[in-house]
Amino acid sequence: MRVDGTRRRTIWLEADGRTVGIIDQTSLPFGFRTARLTRLDEAEEAIRTMRVRGAPLIGVTAAYGMALAMAESASDWSVDLAYGRLLASRPTAVNLRWALDRMREVLDITPPAERMARAYAEAAAMAEEDVATCEAIGRHGLRLVKDMQALHPDRPLNILTHCNAGWLATVDWGTATSPIYQAHRQGIPVHVWVDETRPRNQGAFLTAWELGQEGVPHTVIPDNTGGHLMQRGMVDLCIVGTDRVTAEGDVANKIGTYLKALAAKDTGVPFWVALPGSTIDWTLEDGVRDIPIEQRGGEEVSDLTGQTWDGRVETVRVVSPGSPVANYAFDVTPARLVSGFITERGLCEATREGLSGLFPDQDDRSRPRNAANDA
Amino acid sequence: MRVDGTRRRTIWLEADGRTVGIIDQTSLPFGFRTARLTRLDEAEEAIRTMRVRGAPLIGVTAAYGMALAMAESASDWSVDLAYGRLLASRPTAVNLRWALDRMREVLDITPPAERMARAYAEAAAMAEEDVATCEAIGRHGLRLVKDMQALHPDRPLNILTHCNAGWLATVDWGTATSPIYQAHRQGIPVHVWVDETRPRNQGAFLTAWELGQEGVPHTVIPDNTGGHLMQRGMVDLCIVGTDRVTAEGDVANKIGTYLKALAAKDTGVPFWVALPGSTIDWTLEDGVRDIPIEQRGGEEVSDLTGQTWDGRVETVRVVSPGSPVANYAFDVTPARLVSGFITERGLCEATREGLSGLFPDQDDRSRPRNAANDA
Repeated sequence: MRVDGTRRRTIWLEADGRTVGIIDQTSLPFGFRTARLTRLDEAEEAIRTMRVRGAPLIGVTAAYGMALAMAESASDWSVDLAYGRLLASRPTAVNLRWALDRMREVLDITPPAERMARAYAEAAAMAEEDVATCEAIGRHGLRLVKDMQALHPDRPLNILTHCNAGWLATVDWGTATSPIYQAHRQGIPVHVWVDETRPRNQGAFLTAWELGQEGVPHTVIPDNTGGHLMQRGMVDLCIVGTDRVTAEGDVANKIGTYLKALAAKDTGVPFWVALPGSTIDWTLEDGVRDIPIEQRGGEEVSDLTGQTWDGRVETVRVVSPGSPVANYAFDVTPARLVSGFITERGLCEATREGLSGLFPDQDDRSRPRNAANDA
Repeated sequence: MRVDGTRRRTIWLEADGRTVGIIDQTSLPFGFRTARLTRLDEAEEAIRTMRVRGAPLIGVTAAYGMALAMAESASDWSVDLAYGRLLASRPTAVNLRWALDRMREVLDITPPAERMARAYAEAAAMAEEDVATCEAIGRHGLRLVKDMQALHPDRPLNILTHCNAGWLATVDWGTATSPIYQAHRQGIPVHVWVDETRPRNQGAFLTAWELGQEGVPHTVIPDNTGGHLMQRGMVDLCIVGTDRVTAEGDVANKIGTYLKALAAKDTGVPFWVALPGSTIDWTLEDGVRDIPIEQRGGEEVSDLTGQTWDGRVETVRVVSPGSPVANYAFDVTPARLVSGFITERGLCEATREGLSGLFPDQDDRSRPRNAANDA
């Protein structure tokens, strides 16, 4: 998507064919900075410190991290080391494991001398697939947006989103934002309520920034506001992304998503979740019971970085000094609160039947294990 | 309650018998500062800019504002002017109108020469009544806390609160916090989850500060977190305050309260609202339809004031530059989501019957008007 009018992706291969370029998302929105990853530990650090974030982009970055590791050493030991270190860099995203498993499968059957080239090729393929997937999510979600906008032809469609499931969370297009960008490019009037998304402000910092760069009308609101807006008929549709969906349709996403889903249910606002099939974790069923929730450092809650009126970027404490804080990164929205899923293969209900209908190839793979568990 | 070990109230009469002292709450939690109000316009400014905030404290401050106006001029014109200006200083709090009506009733039947003394006396009486009311709310709420703690004798009772309905919102004790302070003083182990409460951070700034000053164990969490904690059994009880309750039991409170009430309902966590009877607006029934919601300046959302590591207090922009913001100050929690009310006269259900049972004297006053509307 566009940055200062120029087309960009979040991750790319530099001209040397080795170095991986990324947008350093920790510098947004008060500055635009790119970074160069040349070693495994830099890729691992970029994921851990959230220079790259968002489940799909984490997956692609991890794939390139494996390639960078192969450039350092292509031994079996190096494959295992890179796999383990990258897997531990973020605990919740299922795409991370999916991407690393795919890379390891390929590398395991590749002779060491060919591993580096093969790893770069596979990572590049994954990046292209992610772009195609997000584009397809947008195409299917666009139907939904068009249908809903037709109900209110006299005004823009008000869409609420939480956190950043935008193009910054993927290689391009985004998941939740892809239908929005495609609608906007087709001239369908939309307005986006952007949840601030404390503690890291990914809504106010990233989603607002990318919508602004693309010229999509939007308004940033505190996370507390969405329920009120829905009660007053000021939201037509919620679309969020997800870090992991269980086979039964429970949705792990940025902390606070569950609260918006409750409000949507209570007020009759459709609540849709956009995701690539790779986000489905077929090994899990009950999300509240089974999905581990990452706890992150308290400084993300107690400290906030922003820009002073004279342009300095400062970090300030925003909690009473001496008070302890807690920082749970995700919550789980039960499938019963989700109107449906927007995937690269189409729309479906938030049920196992819905997901299996679109992804029979994936579900079959895990069914033997579930059957064994049930026995 | 205590500040640095010294007993304090939020508002008091200075030794000169004229000047009104307040804690300037805009300086908290990074500094402790008091202010002196000597004229009507200073009282009005203190309410408008939220140096004093919280429905009960706004009421008492407005009463003292009337007294300050009488010290300037005790004419009928001055009574009307002060009433109108103070009433307009904040739009949502019903206590403000209640307090001003009470002052005007008294002043209307008082000769101008005696109005100043009478106004100071009435304002002082209202302050004392507020302390007694909050103390009684705490006494009744304490039963609830004790009963619930007895269910988990092996660990502290986890109470979640939103915004600041603490002693800083009243003259002393607070409403939602009064049962907590009384439980803590009796040695009943409690732990409070303090919602940050964006955009003004009254939870992270004020509630956390006052709990810390009183030595009550607590943890500050982003507003997004409460639903997750309730889902995982980490909240035993929610207690919040309110700015206005309708005769049917709908609750206007700080934006975001509705979302927590939805989560409490969904997870079976009791959700109680603490209030003085003066907060009930017997003229309203359907809160979502009838309660006007204050919209405040966008800078409260886009800018946040905190403390740098080296002790400077800085205001930083925390929204992507150029992105518009919206700032709705309150939302309405429908009575169906409220487990009950904690009042100075006891506990009751969140229904007209419940409220009328405890406040038959108040409801009777408005019934003729409602009957006329129904006819």
